[in-house]
Amino acid sequence: MTTVRGFFLPRTASGRSSLLPDPPWHYSGDLLTVEYRTDPARVAELLPAPLDLAAEDPGAVALIWADWQSCSESGDELLDPVRSQYKECFVVVRCSFEGRTYSRCVYIWVDKDFAIARGLYQGYPKKMGSIHQTRPHPYGQAAPRIEVGARFGGTLAAADRRLAQAVVTLTGPAESNGFVNAHPMAHHRWMPAIDKVGPPALDELIESSASSFEGGPIWAGSVDVLDLFDAPTEELSRLAPNEIIGGYYRQVGVVWDGGRHLADGESGAPV
Amino acid sequence: MTTVRGFFLPRTASGRSSLLPDPPWHYSGDLLTVEYRTDPARVAELLPAPLDLAAEDPGAVALIWADWQSCSESGDELLDPVRSQYKECFVVVRCSFEGRTYSRCVYIWVDKDFAIARGLYQGYPKKMGSIHQTRPHPYGQAAPRIEVGARFGGTLAAADRRLAQAVVTLTGPAESNGFVNAHPMAHHRWMPAIDKVGPPALDELIESSASSFEGGPIWAGSVDVLDLFDAPTEELSRLAPNEIIGGYYRQVGVVWDGGRHLADGESGAPV
Amino acid sequence: MTTVRGFFLPRTASGRSSLLPDPPWHYSGDLLTVEYRTDPARVAELLPAPLDLAAEDPGAVALIWADWQSCSESGDELLDPVRSQYKECFVVVRCSFEGRTYSRCVYIWVDKDFAIARGLYQGYPKKMGSIHQTRPHPYGQAAPRIEVGARFGGTLAAADRRLAQAVVTLTGPAESNGFVNAHPMAHHRWMPAIDKVGPPALDELIESSASSFEGGPIWAGSVDVLDLFDAPTEELSRLAPNEIIGGYYRQVGVVWDGGRHLADGESGAPV
Amino acid sequence: MTTVRGFFLPRTASGRSSLLPDPPWHYSGDLLTVEYRTDPARVAELLPAPLDLAAEDPGAVALIWADWQSCSESGDELLDPVRSQYKECFVVVRCSFEGRTYSRCVYIWVDKDFAIARGLYQGYPKKMGSIHQTRPHPYGQAAPRIEVGARFGGTLAAADRRLAQAVVTLTGPAESNGFVNAHPMAHHRWMPAIDKVGPPALDELIESSASSFEGGPIWAGSVDVLDLFDAPTEELSRLAPNEIIGGYYRQVGVVWDGGRHLADGESGAPV
Repeated sequence: MTTVRGFFLPRTASGRSSLLPDPPWHYSGDLLTVEYRTDPARVAELLPAPLDLAAEDPGAVALIWADWQSCSESGDELLDPVRSQYKECFVVVRCSFEGRTYSRCVYIWVDKDFAIARGLYQGYPKKMGSIHQTRPHPYGQAAPRIEVGARFGGTLAAADRRLAQAVVTLTGPAESNGFVNAHPMAHHRWMPAIDKVGPPALDELIESSASSFEGGPIWAGSVDVLDLFDAPTEELSRLAPNEIIGGYYRQVGVVWDGGRHLADGESGAPV
Repeated sequence: MTTVRGFFLPRTASGRSSLLPDPPWHYSGDLLTVEYRTDPARVAELLPAPLDLAAEDPGAVALIWADWQSCSESGDELLDPVRSQYKECFVVVRCSFEGRTYSRCVYIWVDKDFAIARGLYQGYPKKMGSIHQTRPHPYGQAAPRIEVGARFGGTLAAADRRLAQAVVTLTGPAESNGFVNAHPMAHHRWMPAIDKVGPPALDELIESSASSFEGGPIWAGSVDVLDLFDAPTEELSRLAPNEIIGGYYRQVGVVWDGGRHLADGESGAPV
Repeated sequence: MTTVRGFFLPRTASGRSSLLPDPPWHYSGDLLTVEYRTDPARVAELLPAPLDLAAEDPGAVALIWADWQSCSESGDELLDPVRSQYKECFVVVRCSFEGRTYSRCVYIWVDKDFAIARGLYQGYPKKMGSIHQTRPHPYGQAAPRIEVGARFGGTLAAADRRLAQAVVTLTGPAESNGFVNAHPMAHHRWMPAIDKVGPPALDELIESSASSFEGGPIWAGSVDVLDLFDAPTEELSRLAPNEIIGGYYRQVGVVWDGGRHLADGESGAPV
Repeated sequence: MTTVRGFFLPRTASGRSSLLPDPPWHYSGDLLTVEYRTDPARVAELLPAPLDLAAEDPGAVALIWADWQSCSESGDELLDPVRSQYKECFVVVRCSFEGRTYSRCVYIWVDKDFAIARGLYQGYPKKMGSIHQTRPHPYGQAAPRIEVGARFGGTLAAADRRLAQAVVTLTGPAESNGFVNAHPMAHHRWMPAIDKVGPPALDELIESSASSFEGGPIWAGSVDVLDLFDAPTEELSRLAPNEIIGGYYRQVGVVWDGGRHLADGESGAPV
């Protein structure tokens, strides 16, 4: 009798082909964050029961660019960096579940397949996009240093359309790089029934956080540009900014090593 | 209370952002198929219980390139073709379940995110790849006509490495374009537990077929080239060809509109 | 003493590494054309001396999508189709030189490096873009047949921004697929001096045409959508449509086998 | 009479569409270098008259990965980083001209169109490729710090085939990051006649260097992996390594601001 191995598909006798290695997953990267307030009703649209709006500042949104290297425990991916490097742009809001405040990623675009698969496992609603973010560098005039006055741009496109762009100018040290993405994530994992009409095969509310974290100095910045664009299959621009909260820049190292089941979903079949 | 809609993530109030539209899904495309025999033990490695090797010709493998346009019932994607066109290369074997023969896709690479998501829903173990296939054209010398002597090449790469290449020369009409991919598919849908160690959140054996099909003339061909290459995260080359069965070319139209649950998986947690 | 060979760089002892094979170059592909009138002054801006506006209908513009396979005389590229397939979107106007009317490509985007290099050789001002065009197919509902009522979309993006999109619905047979791209091309080949400030190292007006041509039935169509978008490094939207002339669809086979010198340029150094 | 502007094609009334901005061009990036010795006869094959082999160590080769941001004097590209970031992998040898030693890039792959065009202007024989290089990062386990023991991988692919891969482990400080790429570049700029058979329209030997340079600490490293692969349209693997010289890592800032004509080419028409 055959035993197939591997954390994800395709599963084989050796497990070597799995699109995802076993966690823990390690990440080193740079985060460019813009926080702003939108109409809380637009946030509420994205929070199915049993989630509610966060009690305080319920319209707060974080739009985050991340330029990552990631790897498994072996670190093998780092020496074949096409399997390690990826970029993402994602939108986080907050919500409330059983009296506790959670962060929740409502939209996310990445540029590698392993990142898509990790996201589906973690409940991130990932799509492919083209994501770019200014990189700091210590030499030459083609990059900012990480210092007061440094300017960082982030752009996002998908399906050959630009969806978002932002520019942040660093103004000085900060105590946090935002409050919207600062809670454990509350995500739905979701897979429709193979017969299309039955109850979903997977509909689960899960909680997930970094299992360990380290980071460099936190920088605050002014948000000089924040544009969200409409597209036929995207609704990012419904989360229109009414008021800028702030911009942030930080270099971080993160480990992810699993989450926990919070509740069964109550979504029923696709409607 | 919010209702979120959409066949797949991200689910929103309108459902417009879903990476997948509701089935049925329509496909128009060209299939280039190479069938060959490998060591049946290598096929058996990819068939977890309760699946068994097919009773007849258990080492038969089909390596298939497909150049698709696909769309939802509305057909909107066809006029924004970046959302419609994709290519794939996939490997099919046969297996037996409860006395019936099924086809089973054991490896597959595609080049668009919606194709990845559809595959995970249907139990295809999809990764991203770079796939190319000679296109026929009625004019000029930079394409074969679909006729005796026409030569079609297919290539597959992933993670910046070539994984497979084949060349087929059409020899004449055929009655089928192969027997390996001719049965309903028996696929496992799989999602590990969010805590990594518990029983999988989704482990299901499903059956799926085209709900409707039309096709043009079927062509047989000689297989002039068939190369499978090794790679650190791929095991395609374990299915090494011992004997060529044949090559085929066909233009087809397909509709997919759901499948059915066959059995719960017995895989247990990742091992 | 070493002799290096090859039609283009990199040139080596064998010539095998050249980005371009020797002409003739063969092309098989599908053309989707939209013709319209813009302000002739906007066309004149793109016609340096000794070129003048065409005598008749000087504001006519053709926006053309092409989905190609191309190859050298050997045809080797067709069996390794990543080296053969490419798409392009280009803008053609007409001009007058020494009393004769020429076509002239003023903007063009392609998606492969060999196409960029061929273009620079032929005086096409090529950039990289992401180009998509609806493909016809004889089976299934995910493609139009080539018939009355068939709808074809074309889209163009570069640097993660959509630059153009069009939709054409076929209405019936036509006698030509447009008049704007129907003349020999008059192009400038251009290379600045290596010292930046001297006279250009190459500044030449050349003429070029297909050396042979075949094509299928010509289809006329209504232009249902024609959108040109602005971008920081693009001026396509300056050629704004004032009046639609028509849409066209045709499958063609083309051979290109060299052009001829018309005149030295008079452009002087970059200004 | 129309004046068209722009350093490169497409040239327009404003010059805004030019694929290249006016020099100077600024670069900030990381260099991973592997130096080795090949058969000097293989180097000689790539040195057309009037170039000769370098007098000392004529078989020395540098294989260099570079991960760049670049921009024009305005720096605008840095805030729209899809127009600023690119990667390259290139092969440098040395040669002798009129008694002076020059460096010469014989093969180079980049991943953006502006980099291709800059290269053709500067005499670099550029093609498109997929290039990846391990990035250092100060936090987390998914990146090396720049320190003894840090491991950096570089990979190169083109046309869906891997062409080169290397791994370097840092061993300590060094006085230079190699001697092969340390001279002014002697490059041929080349454009065949539009009639294919006449003398080339551009055939010029030029010299070019950085106009200014700054760099961080120089690191030497052991070369743990160096693989060059064959491909139908590439000859990189002819420069097979017989002996490793060393590996290097350095972060640099560079300005390029023009070169100078050395000699007319003597290549004659393509052969």
